[in-house]
Amino acid sequence: MTSPLVQSAEIQAYLDRIAGTADPQGDPRTKAIVRRIVSDLFSTIDEFDVSAEEFWHALHFLQQAAPEFGLIAPGLGFDHFLDVRMDLQDKAAGIAGGTPRTIEGPLYVAGAPLSQGFARLDDGSDKGEVLVMHGTVRETDGTPIAGAIVDVWHANTLGAYSVFDPGQTAYNNRRRIETDAEGRYRFHSIVPSGYSVPPQGSTEQLLGAIGRHGNRPAHIHFFVSAPGHRHLTTQINIPGDPYLHDDFAFATHDDLIPDVTRRAEAEAIHAEGLNVPFAEIAFDFRLNRAESEDETELMARARASVDA
Amino acid sequence: MTSPLVQSAEIQAYLDRIAGTADPQGDPRTKAIVRRIVSDLFSTIDEFDVSAEEFWHALHFLQQAAPEFGLIAPGLGFDHFLDVRMDLQDKAAGIAGGTPRTIEGPLYVAGAPLSQGFARLDDGSDKGEVLVMHGTVRETDGTPIAGAIVDVWHANTLGAYSVFDPGQTAYNNRRRIETDAEGRYRFHSIVPSGYSVPPQGSTEQLLGAIGRHGNRPAHIHFFVSAPGHRHLTTQINIPGDPYLHDDFAFATHDDLIPDVTRRAEAEAIHAEGLNVPFAEIAFDFRLNRAESEDETELMARARASVDA
Repeated sequence: MTSPLVQSAEIQAYLDRIAGTADPQGDPRTKAIVRRIVSDLFSTIDEFDVSAEEFWHALHFLQQAAPEFGLIAPGLGFDHFLDVRMDLQDKAAGIAGGTPRTIEGPLYVAGAPLSQGFARLDDGSDKGEVLVMHGTVRETDGTPIAGAIVDVWHANTLGAYSVFDPGQTAYNNRRRIETDAEGRYRFHSIVPSGYSVPPQGSTEQLLGAIGRHGNRPAHIHFFVSAPGHRHLTTQINIPGDPYLHDDFAFATHDDLIPDVTRRAEAEAIHAEGLNVPFAEIAFDFRLNRAESEDETELMARARASVDA
Repeated sequence: MTSPLVQSAEIQAYLDRIAGTADPQGDPRTKAIVRRIVSDLFSTIDEFDVSAEEFWHALHFLQQAAPEFGLIAPGLGFDHFLDVRMDLQDKAAGIAGGTPRTIEGPLYVAGAPLSQGFARLDDGSDKGEVLVMHGTVRETDGTPIAGAIVDVWHANTLGAYSVFDPGQTAYNNRRRIETDAEGRYRFHSIVPSGYSVPPQGSTEQLLGAIGRHGNRPAHIHFFVSAPGHRHLTTQINIPGDPYLHDDFAFATHDDLIPDVTRRAEAEAIHAEGLNVPFAEIAFDFRLNRAESEDETELMARARASVDA
């Protein structure tokens, strides 16, 4: 909807000036997108009769909120919307059979320690329920992929992520595991808890203003990659979490909620080299074939790093 | 324009979840505005086929740009658009006769020294052309208003503002002047130069991407206020500036470009207590009567301060 004021010749000419429409310099796509976004915001201001005070209040909110934009984006549904569009594009292109994608979130950190076949993710300081997760990375026809990289990261039992949480050791609950000759990966860790946006932060303020919460159900993030295959960004959820189907980031996917088996038999505990009962998740990843080198790579995005 | 995907029942239901539409908690107006803005941005993403990489690039740009949002807003025409709407509202309400408003900009600082009738604004360190500006604050019928406050601020000859420019003394080129019994104000200062957005900053990057520049013509800002009268936010431009009608912030107004008279006569110089020729601007402000106490006050907005 474009408001009558915004449709007027005067404001249309003004929008042309704003977006540099007539100027031969600059990037035409950027101009067109800037013109569209500003025009839509003008219409919103006009139709909702947004006062100057409200506008400046909103702008100030955004200035304060900038460090949390990586949380506000999923909270306002943008990350999942991008997934919806990529899913539709895949469907239109006949690409199917791979593990479903879901959002990355803003808490990935590159450079986690790399190991072969197996890793322990946690540093032992968190006395949560022990988790054993394992599976095989496969082609869509089921063929195992040796040498695939499973890059896994998750929160601790307080819902906090290492690097962002100064109380944790570097790369706690973050590892890269290379699959073995049979395409298998396995890791030990602790069962993560759900995540909440920072208390009193901008995301919580915004969600509170619209009657929403800022909780994510317990989940584990993965990047899975292998030469010749499309890079996969996904997560699994831990069933039983009260927010399982009420994720503030809209990332839950029915095909990404594997069963969790509680294992208390001495034989199973012994076989894992553990001395306590544990939770077990078996989950195979399936990767689509890449059509280009580009598709094998993680999408470019500004991300946190240990050095930053 | 709403894209077919965004119009789909699935995405409409998703937007309801995003905006907390069905939730009884939260503020209905905020929900409705959030829903509208997110819906419009989804449509823009869909229609322009904005990739996830482009989205995250834009989000990162906004995170980096947040300190400059106060410049990006006028550069993308929001400040002037708010003025356009307030002008239309005034016209519809039959409010006329006052000095036209124009944008405040992000560089006002409260608490400048207050003096009676006259002030020297500059600290003497800037060897620019001497400026003498004077006039009367009047009702719309011409009656002078004694005890009005003229709060004036402007850049130095490098286009820089005190407080934001650490090289200047506090409140340089910033003063509040109370009009005398005949409603008169007068100040001495230096003729300011135009302003440019910070080199290599986010605003310049964005404007460059759309083929635009980040220059403002030379101008002087004013808040003019008096009990019982509407608070006025305005500026005057100095004629002759190459950017006079090409202000990146769209703030130039034909009725706010007073003549500048160059005065070199010994008598005029002597009368001002000066010893060099000077530029003279005579400008009267006219204030509309306020209908409520609210209208007499400066609009709330997060602003810089000397202590911050």
